[in-house]
Amino acid sequence: MNGAESLVHTLLANDVNVCFTNPGTSEMHFVAALDHIPGMRSILALQEGVATGAADGYYRMAGKPASTLLHLGPGLANGLSNLHNAKKAGSGVVNIVGEHASTHIELDAPLTSDIEGIARPVSHWVHTSHSAATVGADAAKAVQASMKAPGQIATLVLPSDTAWNEGGVPQDAVDLPAPAPFDESQLAQAVDALDGPETLLLLGGGALTESNLETAGRIAAKTGCKILSEWSNARLERGAGRVFVGRVPYPIDIALKVLEPFKRIVLIGARAPIGFFAYPGKPAILTREGAEIVKLADAGADLGAALTALSEGTQASATPPAHVVEASMPERPDGPINLDNLAALIARAIPEDAIVVDESVTTGRAFSPATKGAPKHTWLNNCGGSIGYALPASIGAAVACPDRKVMCLTGDGSAMYTVQSLWTMAREKLDVTILVFANRSYQILRGELTNVGVANAGPRAVDMLSLDRPALDWVQMSRSMGVDAVRVTDCDGLEDALADGLSSGGPNLIEVML
Amino acid sequence: MNGAESLVHTLLANDVNVCFTNPGTSEMHFVAALDHIPGMRSILALQEGVATGAADGYYRMAGKPASTLLHLGPGLANGLSNLHNAKKAGSGVVNIVGEHASTHIELDAPLTSDIEGIARPVSHWVHTSHSAATVGADAAKAVQASMKAPGQIATLVLPSDTAWNEGGVPQDAVDLPAPAPFDESQLAQAVDALDGPETLLLLGGGALTESNLETAGRIAAKTGCKILSEWSNARLERGAGRVFVGRVPYPIDIALKVLEPFKRIVLIGARAPIGFFAYPGKPAILTREGAEIVKLADAGADLGAALTALSEGTQASATPPAHVVEASMPERPDGPINLDNLAALIARAIPEDAIVVDESVTTGRAFSPATKGAPKHTWLNNCGGSIGYALPASIGAAVACPDRKVMCLTGDGSAMYTVQSLWTMAREKLDVTILVFANRSYQILRGELTNVGVANAGPRAVDMLSLDRPALDWVQMSRSMGVDAVRVTDCDGLEDALADGLSSGGPNLIEVML
Repeated sequence: MNGAESLVHTLLANDVNVCFTNPGTSEMHFVAALDHIPGMRSILALQEGVATGAADGYYRMAGKPASTLLHLGPGLANGLSNLHNAKKAGSGVVNIVGEHASTHIELDAPLTSDIEGIARPVSHWVHTSHSAATVGADAAKAVQASMKAPGQIATLVLPSDTAWNEGGVPQDAVDLPAPAPFDESQLAQAVDALDGPETLLLLGGGALTESNLETAGRIAAKTGCKILSEWSNARLERGAGRVFVGRVPYPIDIALKVLEPFKRIVLIGARAPIGFFAYPGKPAILTREGAEIVKLADAGADLGAALTALSEGTQASATPPAHVVEASMPERPDGPINLDNLAALIARAIPEDAIVVDESVTTGRAFSPATKGAPKHTWLNNCGGSIGYALPASIGAAVACPDRKVMCLTGDGSAMYTVQSLWTMAREKLDVTILVFANRSYQILRGELTNVGVANAGPRAVDMLSLDRPALDWVQMSRSMGVDAVRVTDCDGLEDALADGLSSGGPNLIEVML
Repeated sequence: MNGAESLVHTLLANDVNVCFTNPGTSEMHFVAALDHIPGMRSILALQEGVATGAADGYYRMAGKPASTLLHLGPGLANGLSNLHNAKKAGSGVVNIVGEHASTHIELDAPLTSDIEGIARPVSHWVHTSHSAATVGADAAKAVQASMKAPGQIATLVLPSDTAWNEGGVPQDAVDLPAPAPFDESQLAQAVDALDGPETLLLLGGGALTESNLETAGRIAAKTGCKILSEWSNARLERGAGRVFVGRVPYPIDIALKVLEPFKRIVLIGARAPIGFFAYPGKPAILTREGAEIVKLADAGADLGAALTALSEGTQASATPPAHVVEASMPERPDGPINLDNLAALIARAIPEDAIVVDESVTTGRAFSPATKGAPKHTWLNNCGGSIGYALPASIGAAVACPDRKVMCLTGDGSAMYTVQSLWTMAREKLDVTILVFANRSYQILRGELTNVGVANAGPRAVDMLSLDRPALDWVQMSRSMGVDAVRVTDCDGLEDALADGLSSGGPNLIEVML
């Protein structure tokens, strides 16, 4: 058995059975091993940002890592920004990066680079194997590292001679790390703090499951505290019958206003609210001055246990939860599409058990309230702020959950970053309906230009924020990669397109003209 | 004057007047400064790999750096692989990377990352400014670093408060570094080594200008030595009336055969030949055992002076150069397109003074001999091996040389990596004719799979190397981004398309079905 074969056997023994890849010469032995060892679903991406973003979406929905197989430093580099997003989301990913044979590295060939150096800023764990004999054990350690709660980026660099040499030793399933205990020393203080509407219970990460939200709802009902989630959530369970949780708003002035009432904040899997960016003359810490912050459980802790303890401490366990959402549906709008009737149409279309991958940026600010009463669904946000996450993450979500429908909501600027995703969706026949919001600009930056204090931007500045010269034709773009597409300009058209797309069973794209 | 304004003034004073960018919030003050200070041509890219690849192509043709303006760590990360290519090509680039305000970094916001850590593996020079007052001086140092011969990657990280705070101090033009002297201690040995056809004069980088090639041709005529260039050349001047230089072949067995005769190798701006990859049981050093290697001048040295000294030492200065190419044109082929008649048609179409940006990979192996006698032109190779360089580099070449026609020769797999380039070409109305060679596979990897010793690859492996499921429609793809396109399947069609495209004056794409 060679090193490459020991890698594949070890990953499979550890239940890592999906590989998002764009391999090159230095990975050919892995490709060969994937070929003759059954069990790994290998999915080709035409740019590595697609592969790493897919691994992020996969982890969020599967609760276990996918592997990526990347070509040397440059292949890893192309996937780096979506690894950044995955890291911030607490997603586990096992990156396998090919490297030149050990004897070749010192020759400084064209593709030679500092792979560990490239990996480190986005990885929690980085290791280079030094012989075929250790590849299996190293791969097992990578899986362990990736599964440290809430999920980590593990990058294993494999020189090609460690792949092709004989002497590989596959590893059986290894123990996976348990989440850390929550901070019991803070429990009494947290229980004391939960005292009426001047207290905020701020939830993040794994606190946003259906059952954890229900516990939070009981606590809110019993104590009168408010609950909110962070602005960016890796995975939020929503819809009719579940406890509703709003998000701390993105715009800084609105966030300050929303958070101003809270004298006490208890954190469960969340961090104390800060601004996405700093702005001249505005605060970056969004909580009121002197607010008491109780850190009961960070993202890596057992959040279910923390909420249960809090519920018991406040004697809320038998209290029916507050904020349980009743099924509701916005009125059917008609006429031209604006942000409100767009939100209404999306809310009306969300299928039961759908996964909504949201990178709608400015267009989507009205989506949360409008979709509150839709059938049960799962909502994924971009957690790292690097645009181009939604199309790849939709691939990963669809691969993880083949029986669920995926709705991908993305701005046109974001979608262009990883547009190659469409081809992979077509190849894998994934059940994804994509809405591209074609406002033909980096709309968010128009606001940000004002926020940083720039009034009266001139034409050269505006040109750097505009996508309308030339206009992108998303229908042709999508079809060129094998994904059926349609353009809609009014509510009737969008309603029909959503009905058609969501019932098609395969990938499809709707260009929504704004 | 704020820091951002001092940056723009300093860049302009140092003749850096092109900026390839995709800015974000943290760069809004730079966008504002670019808006109201005239002189900087700002060119928007829809993904940062386009911006950095364009800067590479720009430097090769302009001989001075462009700036890039990138959004935080993730924006830089997206541009990393084409910075790797630029680094290996010896191209100078001035990266300006926005960072959170100094007070914001410690809060670990979603977009916070280790920007210097991301920059370092691809940069020769990395610096973070700490106040508005130093931005101008730091920018001047970045330009100096980028211009160290043959060209370097300089990355300047600017926290947003250094942009928006007052107190900026612009710098005037600074002295640019001269190339290092060549190694005179090796001159006598090099002159001695140049003794008949068992000596190779191996040229790279700046040794491949028209006049330096002419000097090399004189030396070859006088001493009987052979001349070759490296496989990957950042910029090679070719065509009728110039001294022809072949390339060390990429396939390892052929390279070994070509290099076997040479007992002595004199290096001028080149490195001793090594394999692009290591293969089991094959050598990585491609020169014959015991070959004498004389390193007269590395890529950073004054290569013209080295060649002149060598010419004088061998008393070749008055000898007419060998290998001067006579104008010639292959016969006009017809019928279906194959690799030979494709090469012939390209050779027949190359316009006088064209810039050929070549990422044709397997398709292009016959292009060099066929195009030998075409009118004078410039040929650019991918020097770092990270695919997706050609479309962006064509942007940079076209911006640097608006009066010259650019032909971009690219495989379909490579073109998909940075396909967003098409939009920038359309927006900037660049005179680029793109040939996409649609063999619908990563054809090179089929050979590499065999090279690493994998016989009888099965369907799962072949699927990872294939782009035919679904087929990419390059005509729709191109038109979707505003670039006119046509598909050709035979020689007549390609000849017509080349004539139309090259006379159009704007960007156009030809999908060549193979």
